Amino acid sequence: MSILVVGSVALDSVETPFGKIEHALGGSATYFSIAASFFYHDIYLVGVVGTDFPKKHVDFLVSRGIDLDGLEQIEGGKTFRWGGSYVDDLNAAKTHFTDLNVFSDFQPKLPESYKNSPYVFLANINPELQINVLKQMTNPKLVVCDTMNLWIDISRPMLLETLRKVDILILNDAEARQLTGENNLTRAGKKILTFGPTRVIIKKGEHGAISLTESTFFSAPAYPLTAVVDPTGAGDSFAGGFMGSLVTLNGLSEQDIRRSIINGTVIASFNVEDFSLDRQRTLTPKEIDERFHQLEEIVRF
Amino acid sequence: MSILVVGSVALDSVETPFGKIEHALGGSATYFSIAASFFYHDIYLVGVVGTDFPKKHVDFLVSRGIDLDGLEQIEGGKTFRWGGSYVDDLNAAKTHFTDLNVFSDFQPKLPESYKNSPYVFLANINPELQINVLKQMTNPKLVVCDTMNLWIDISRPMLLETLRKVDILILNDAEARQLTGENNLTRAGKKILTFGPTRVIIKKGEHGAISLTESTFFSAPAYPLTAVVDPTGAGDSFAGGFMGSLVTLNGLSEQDIRRSIINGTVIASFNVEDFSLDRQRTLTPKEIDERFHQLEEIVRF
Repeated sequence: MSILVVGSVALDSVETPFGKIEHALGGSATYFSIAASFFYHDIYLVGVVGTDFPKKHVDFLVSRGIDLDGLEQIEGGKTFRWGGSYVDDLNAAKTHFTDLNVFSDFQPKLPESYKNSPYVFLANINPELQINVLKQMTNPKLVVCDTMNLWIDISRPMLLETLRKVDILILNDAEARQLTGENNLTRAGKKILTFGPTRVIIKKGEHGAISLTESTFFSAPAYPLTAVVDPTGAGDSFAGGFMGSLVTLNGLSEQDIRRSIINGTVIASFNVEDFSLDRQRTLTPKEIDERFHQLEEIVRF
Repeated sequence: MSILVVGSVALDSVETPFGKIEHALGGSATYFSIAASFFYHDIYLVGVVGTDFPKKHVDFLVSRGIDLDGLEQIEGGKTFRWGGSYVDDLNAAKTHFTDLNVFSDFQPKLPESYKNSPYVFLANINPELQINVLKQMTNPKLVVCDTMNLWIDISRPMLLETLRKVDILILNDAEARQLTGENNLTRAGKKILTFGPTRVIIKKGEHGAISLTESTFFSAPAYPLTAVVDPTGAGDSFAGGFMGSLVTLNGLSEQDIRRSIINGTVIASFNVEDFSLDRQRTLTPKEIDERFHQLEEIVRF
């Protein structure tokens, strides 16, 4: 009953009004795995790093129970590095540099033991690679996918082909509007359902998230934070918390989905309280539980 | 146990992607009163119109049980007229013209019978007039207030003086940010509480609303509409539904407030389904009730 995630493992340099970090642990697969590890313990990570990737980061991932057989290390290669800042708008990063390095030639190759994973998260990578991963899999039970403005822009046909094979698409409001040409998010969500996924989850930052199927509509609150220290990885933490929780609940009912969306919200809310994945290093199940119950209270009427 | 509202009564010309109307019934006090009338039947309207104000509009207000003793009609005067359009962004109107007419010299004078109203809504008018209204009142139990960017801009000291006398401030997200200089809405809300109100309700359009006191936080969902025909009056409809519901519940508990915010959300959602107040002409209690229960379902997890 493993969860397979394919995405980036990176070293991030980030500046926000609260400070800055350099070459800290980052990447979509990293944020996803760590978030999922708070709910579930069979997580397979597929990604690539260079020989410059610090051993302490590997140790941290291993300490959270994450299987790294799928993490390729390119001899003499350099790890994907991203630098950016959040100034006025904490929802939109300004990219300073993107050094893809070993990630530019990334061709995900699944270890044999990974191929029959029932749960798959295709993090935000080229849709061609996302399809490629699905082709290597035996018979996944649930395929969840993320994407970004870049692929909607330059790789729409391939992205649409991916979406036909996806059960749940998770994306943010701007991406949902861009993908569908619909300004109204409910309409955008409904249109995405015609592309293939049976469910779409649209993240709206400080406004929470909505989740639509043909017959259901869920509005999830955001956790009310008064200070966002570093928003990097919030989306992938949300997805990781969501899937980890979902697999633990071992069902796909609307109720399971909703409670898992709330768990995703909770992990994302902790993630942004500190730089990189630093908050997750001390995060406890009790803290997660408390915030879950606070969210129950926040929407009760 | 009457609700007193002071605000504009207007004739609106509005254009949206769905069509246009000319010189249709509008104005903050109008939208508020009609919305409140779906929950409560003792509503006193204070406003001003000219002799051009069609009798059919007066008849409509009277048919909803609204007391118009406080609606001054200026002999030979012209009613406040506003023209605007919503093009790309249904959250922001583009104003084409604002003919204040009789509204420019509006000095709210409360009939004797109005002065001991326990509930007051100060719609979006000059804060000087808002204070003036409060001075005429005996001992209001609950003062709710709206405002707008214009007054925050040009009349901040007077607005802050009004806020010291207000129990609940209702405003939208952009206004909350402008008033406080805080981008984070939770922080903005908390800062507003230091200005005087014991509660602030921040409306976020398609993202719902949040309501804060020193010790509580409520996140209300929006009703998921796939088509907004005309957003004019949504905020005042929300406020009217909120106060009408609150007075009917006859309490001020957090639970009463929350259920009333949802009722405000419901009325606002109907209001935007047609131009002017046309949707309210056929709206039934059963429809309101159904949408209330849909919102319960939408947030349940």
